[in-house]
Amino acid sequence: MPEIDPGRLLGDLRALAKFGAYKTGVHRPTFSREDVEARHWFADRLAEAGLDATIDGIGSVFGFSRAPGRKMLTGSHLESQNHAGWLDGPLGVVYGLEAARALAEDPATADLGVDVAAWCDEEGHFGSFLGSRSFVGLLSEDEIDKARNRYDGTPLREALDKAGLSGRPRLQFEAGRHTGYVEAHIEQGDTLESGDLKIGIVTAIVAIWQYRLTATGEQNHAGTTGMARRRDAGLAIVRLLGEIDRRFPGLAGPRTVWTCGRITLEPGAPSIIPGRAEALLQIRDADAAVLERLQAELQRLVEEANRDGRCPIAIEVMSQSTPALMDESLQAAIAAAAEARCPGKALRMPSGAGHDAQYLARVMPGAMLFVPSIGGISHHWTENTADADIVLGAQVFCDAVVRMLRR
Amino acid sequence: MPEIDPGRLLGDLRALAKFGAYKTGVHRPTFSREDVEARHWFADRLAEAGLDATIDGIGSVFGFSRAPGRKMLTGSHLESQNHAGWLDGPLGVVYGLEAARALAEDPATADLGVDVAAWCDEEGHFGSFLGSRSFVGLLSEDEIDKARNRYDGTPLREALDKAGLSGRPRLQFEAGRHTGYVEAHIEQGDTLESGDLKIGIVTAIVAIWQYRLTATGEQNHAGTTGMARRRDAGLAIVRLLGEIDRRFPGLAGPRTVWTCGRITLEPGAPSIIPGRAEALLQIRDADAAVLERLQAELQRLVEEANRDGRCPIAIEVMSQSTPALMDESLQAAIAAAAEARCPGKALRMPSGAGHDAQYLARVMPGAMLFVPSIGGISHHWTENTADADIVLGAQVFCDAVVRMLRR
Repeated sequence: MPEIDPGRLLGDLRALAKFGAYKTGVHRPTFSREDVEARHWFADRLAEAGLDATIDGIGSVFGFSRAPGRKMLTGSHLESQNHAGWLDGPLGVVYGLEAARALAEDPATADLGVDVAAWCDEEGHFGSFLGSRSFVGLLSEDEIDKARNRYDGTPLREALDKAGLSGRPRLQFEAGRHTGYVEAHIEQGDTLESGDLKIGIVTAIVAIWQYRLTATGEQNHAGTTGMARRRDAGLAIVRLLGEIDRRFPGLAGPRTVWTCGRITLEPGAPSIIPGRAEALLQIRDADAAVLERLQAELQRLVEEANRDGRCPIAIEVMSQSTPALMDESLQAAIAAAAEARCPGKALRMPSGAGHDAQYLARVMPGAMLFVPSIGGISHHWTENTADADIVLGAQVFCDAVVRMLRR
Repeated sequence: MPEIDPGRLLGDLRALAKFGAYKTGVHRPTFSREDVEARHWFADRLAEAGLDATIDGIGSVFGFSRAPGRKMLTGSHLESQNHAGWLDGPLGVVYGLEAARALAEDPATADLGVDVAAWCDEEGHFGSFLGSRSFVGLLSEDEIDKARNRYDGTPLREALDKAGLSGRPRLQFEAGRHTGYVEAHIEQGDTLESGDLKIGIVTAIVAIWQYRLTATGEQNHAGTTGMARRRDAGLAIVRLLGEIDRRFPGLAGPRTVWTCGRITLEPGAPSIIPGRAEALLQIRDADAAVLERLQAELQRLVEEANRDGRCPIAIEVMSQSTPALMDESLQAAIAAAAEARCPGKALRMPSGAGHDAQYLARVMPGAMLFVPSIGGISHHWTENTADADIVLGAQVFCDAVVRMLRR
């Protein structure tokens, strides 16, 4: 098996972390100056590795192999969440680059092809999974026209223009070129760390079902309106969230998660009974049957709450994705590679977070490999992974790519 | 008994409603152009009524009687809440003016003195009860220096200067001048209307105890952080509010009200577990013992919630006023006046809202009279009271003032 170069691998990751360095992490939003610089820097590394490097019309960076036969496509993303970690994204693209280099350097694997992609805007500064969706044909020109930066409102077209990418073609996958897609990523949870494990083999990327719950009551004076007469929309939402908290655990699967990340009471003044209240509820699971069951319970709880008609609650479905199943044979390749390098230290697990792999898996067999996150921390500048785990993960990734190509 | 002039009374109220007219209500924030114009207009009406009219250094409008002996002080406020009703405030000041006029016109009462005040900023655009607190000696120059408009940040000093009031003295009550203070106001609730009653005799103005409840958890990824590992600050606050909802009814008095008017989850994103959550809780009652009981229960619930230590909740006491008891003898005067004009149509009741009377009652016997609010609506431009109820209320108010002066 080809051996990766730990110094080169860590050196590239540390070099990338300098673009938008923030404390021990990075602040590198999509199409910020630092992000555009990082894309060009990475394209140069791909070219150095003998790949045909290009940045396409949505900002994704590609390195295409000139090897004959079917290739493995690898990828992840370069931009970061705001004030976040140095590995969320870069780890996967550098693993792909290092695998391409290691295979090319080993005469036994020099004829195997590895393509490398850095999908643009996985982190959703302008949209959602723009690069990978564009590549699989799920991003329209119309959506690009309308997309704006969610923090400062800059139109995506303007940002593309400023980045010098206007007018470039958007690359789409070529049927038959790839035998599969594999993406490495930090786990972002603490399952591996707490089990003293080194490699996560992703079985599926969870579906996210998201709802806006809106209660309509009557805005009124908090001093002169008696309790019996009130139609307090805020209280209606609090009661519903309390019921969800009591009922969901008995119906959920072992890895189901649900979150209310935002509650808004209107008008939001201490002396005014809220006339309108809103909560965002998100449920994630890799099993659609579990999601169906929880959605049915949510609907039942809302119906129950609405029976007295004082503060009618409406459910708006905001998004309802399908779980993305990872390919069994690619999972087996990762498992075999891990067993050879770190016996007994791999675990099959779903991914609770979304990844570009969920879109690539629509057009080719897909797989993901996780490495441990220290303390399970992610989307924060303290996010980190031990160097030894980064190196081990890269070697297992590289070995797995060889196994996938030789299936 | 002197008779009020219904046409003059309603005419003055309608004239005031033109300053900052908004739909069927008014938008007349403290020291807006319309508000300053209304103050001057009202000062002119006081002077026309033979009172010594002046606007003092905090913006309160006064009309002082030249009659001999102890006088009754009457008052309310001229500014409105934003986009609110035409009677909240003006009703009380015009009742005072009309009583002064009616008493002066009737030879039998012409020697009785009625002072009229329009206290500045009862509605709290720049502070809280600025005019009445200034009059009773509870407003410092330092507080005025620091006060700013809560919507646009304009310093109070700048607003006073622009209104031409800089450098004027702030008037304070003169010991021995008044036999008491009486204020008329719309009820702002539906107790009178739903009981087919015409006059509310306020027994006490409730105390407001207000708390900021802050839960501290751990901000994390809503997809990769399992339910068992989470420290969800939002959920901690929702559970606490649920317990308050379950426990308070059994401990509250018949007229206690409690309200959570604002909930904030941080960072407030659908895919991030809130690391910090805050709720504002307000409790009102005229009985301090009830407030003590509910506060003790709140502390017990928070201790209970904090036992597992996952998301510690802190209670910050934001304000804790004392109930303002209205004078028994002044209440009796209103009751007698009401019984003479509309037998069986008066009710003794606490005021759930705060009023300038709570500060005046600290330095002299205080009383309040309520008239019905249509649908119990207030702090909204649809606020209203039937003309017949406005007229009846003014007559009862005028009669009560005579009875108070003749005690």
